[in-house]
Amino acid sequence: MSPQPGSAGDVLTLISAGSATTRSDLARLTGLARSTISQRVDALIERGLVEESESGESTGGRPPRQLRLHTEDHAFAGVDLGATHCRVALMDISGQVLAECEDPLLIGEGPEKVLAHVDQRLDRLLGEAGRTRPMLRAIGIGVPGPVEFATGRPNNPPIMPGWNDYPVPEYFGGVSVLVDNDVNVMALGEHRHSFPETRHLLFVKVGTGIGCGIVADGKLHRGAQGSAGDIGHIRVSGHDDAGCRCGNSACLEAVAGGAAIARKLAELGLPAERGADVVALVQAGDTQALRLVREAGRHIGEVLAGLVNFFNPEVIVIGGALSRVHEHLLAGIRETVYRRSLPLATHHLSITPSRTGIDAAALGAGLLAIEHYLSPENINRIVSA
Amino acid sequence: MSPQPGSAGDVLTLISAGSATTRSDLARLTGLARSTISQRVDALIERGLVEESESGESTGGRPPRQLRLHTEDHAFAGVDLGATHCRVALMDISGQVLAECEDPLLIGEGPEKVLAHVDQRLDRLLGEAGRTRPMLRAIGIGVPGPVEFATGRPNNPPIMPGWNDYPVPEYFGGVSVLVDNDVNVMALGEHRHSFPETRHLLFVKVGTGIGCGIVADGKLHRGAQGSAGDIGHIRVSGHDDAGCRCGNSACLEAVAGGAAIARKLAELGLPAERGADVVALVQAGDTQALRLVREAGRHIGEVLAGLVNFFNPEVIVIGGALSRVHEHLLAGIRETVYRRSLPLATHHLSITPSRTGIDAAALGAGLLAIEHYLSPENINRIVSA
Repeated sequence: MSPQPGSAGDVLTLISAGSATTRSDLARLTGLARSTISQRVDALIERGLVEESESGESTGGRPPRQLRLHTEDHAFAGVDLGATHCRVALMDISGQVLAECEDPLLIGEGPEKVLAHVDQRLDRLLGEAGRTRPMLRAIGIGVPGPVEFATGRPNNPPIMPGWNDYPVPEYFGGVSVLVDNDVNVMALGEHRHSFPETRHLLFVKVGTGIGCGIVADGKLHRGAQGSAGDIGHIRVSGHDDAGCRCGNSACLEAVAGGAAIARKLAELGLPAERGADVVALVQAGDTQALRLVREAGRHIGEVLAGLVNFFNPEVIVIGGALSRVHEHLLAGIRETVYRRSLPLATHHLSITPSRTGIDAAALGAGLLAIEHYLSPENINRIVSA
Repeated sequence: MSPQPGSAGDVLTLISAGSATTRSDLARLTGLARSTISQRVDALIERGLVEESESGESTGGRPPRQLRLHTEDHAFAGVDLGATHCRVALMDISGQVLAECEDPLLIGEGPEKVLAHVDQRLDRLLGEAGRTRPMLRAIGIGVPGPVEFATGRPNNPPIMPGWNDYPVPEYFGGVSVLVDNDVNVMALGEHRHSFPETRHLLFVKVGTGIGCGIVADGKLHRGAQGSAGDIGHIRVSGHDDAGCRCGNSACLEAVAGGAAIARKLAELGLPAERGADVVALVQAGDTQALRLVREAGRHIGEVLAGLVNFFNPEVIVIGGALSRVHEHLLAGIRETVYRRSLPLATHHLSITPSRTGIDAAALGAGLLAIEHYLSPENINRIVSA
């Protein structure tokens, strides 16, 4: 329960969820006095968050006016920054995508260059969608590294030189900016888009490295320091000779990540430097590549088997670059999870490739921004400002 | 937000949390109409949940009447059923223990005998506390095995013969009965009693077997099938020869549980059959026992290191029979967790022995009952009945 039930934020939540479409609905659902309802709704209309039409059905007398989320005067951005790409999606307050774009971009060029690029793209997309800069209310950004979520600062990200402790939100002036690890925003995007009714979901990204986004009881679980889901450095058995960039050995990522598979293929004399090359070899039917991807799936499955026992999710979604050859990866994962996890935990478990695909990150980052903006706490702050 | 902000349940939550002590507080905090507040409060008083005194401070005119939780007319029970014991705590609605008892009792005698014993003890404790049977509003029961929480039926519990699918709640007639795995109620008891401000906590029980209770964002995480926290069957590396009762090998429990340590000590010719014997040997200073307990700690630490990366808890509490020799167990656990987990996740991590001790389970079971009873949904149901 929010500390102030029946606040403007609560009223807006009822309207945006479709639970209330008239002032009478609100009075009935909240038990608030009519005068309080009017005060709340008027404040929301004044701030451009809600609109009230005359189009309600007649019930004999004056037709009741319909309340709904005002989707015209706001815009939200979801930004997916990868190691070598930048996707930006502009969305309205209901989560509808208004415009989007994608460009190659090296995250290693550092925050100023990368964020300047994002800023230009925002202007272009706002223009395309017929919105203006002041309408941009919040930006969500997913980055390929750990982030202190509360401040939006990357925290010793290994593949983002120059970004450590950089105050990303300040780059964009007054607008709210939420920065999160890419796999967290992918988990959010996948959950909201493809599995909205699922309470407990894991999103596993298998690319160069391996990471996991956790949805617990419908919400992102970031953990105490925001580092939850960092499964790439969990130990797998029988690989104590596999050194990892983290300084330990036998880490999942050092054994089963895209970079590790590429290295093994290169040792066999095949043309592989990174995850994309592994995908290309598998797609070309190379049996060594097939074998190594399936074996990687088994190692990932060993770690996931433990996490299934621990967390008991309903759904595990496999995403990331290597999920493009998901049949081989999933075969290995499923084989091990079903062998090693408890029957009670796997009986209804679904292990599935990402349905949202490459859009999960930009979509999820945008939804992170919208959900933050629509949170009762933020709405109450806006309305009382 | 509950679907009906400002409901009787929400009003009671504000009173029980101490946020509101007068009707004016409630009006201010909820924005509800005065008449609605009166209706809610009157219903709560009529149901014996709230009392209103005349003892408020004078503010010139009539002193405002103080609202508080009515603690006289209700009782709640927390029951801890172990393999060989039964503890019952009788509590008031604020969580205060009114009376308690403990007896040896074999869970293997089956549900009828065991629950008849619980029932007798409830009568005795109610008598001691000067309360009557109809005042007993809810019972929480922790059992040493998996439970389908929604129905209160044990689910293939390995050490509870005769209990599979037994409808425990129906034994007690009309009163609400919540049945949960013992380690879940221990986690809840430990969290509420010793770490109420901690958001993410793991409670690891190391006894004959090994299990874990998970508090995520202040709430018990039971997972999709209620089997979350079953870490005893996660694979540890280098022990593929250790067969487990679950049918797999190298399970944590088969390598590091109290029964496994006792077996290893017996093989060395020492008098050990179960966990308690291991504790006795350690307390007597036996160096083989010390060595094996520390080694068990390292294996538990290997699994926890992975879970720290995945879940990023603030606190890990070590409880259960073997925690009586916690210095040796903790040394092994800490050594491995700090070596294998990511620095970001361990920087502020506290790994600590249980502070609640043997009372965690009965206390937690009682709090489970009280929290269920005081949930806005249940209060709204009671008030509208």
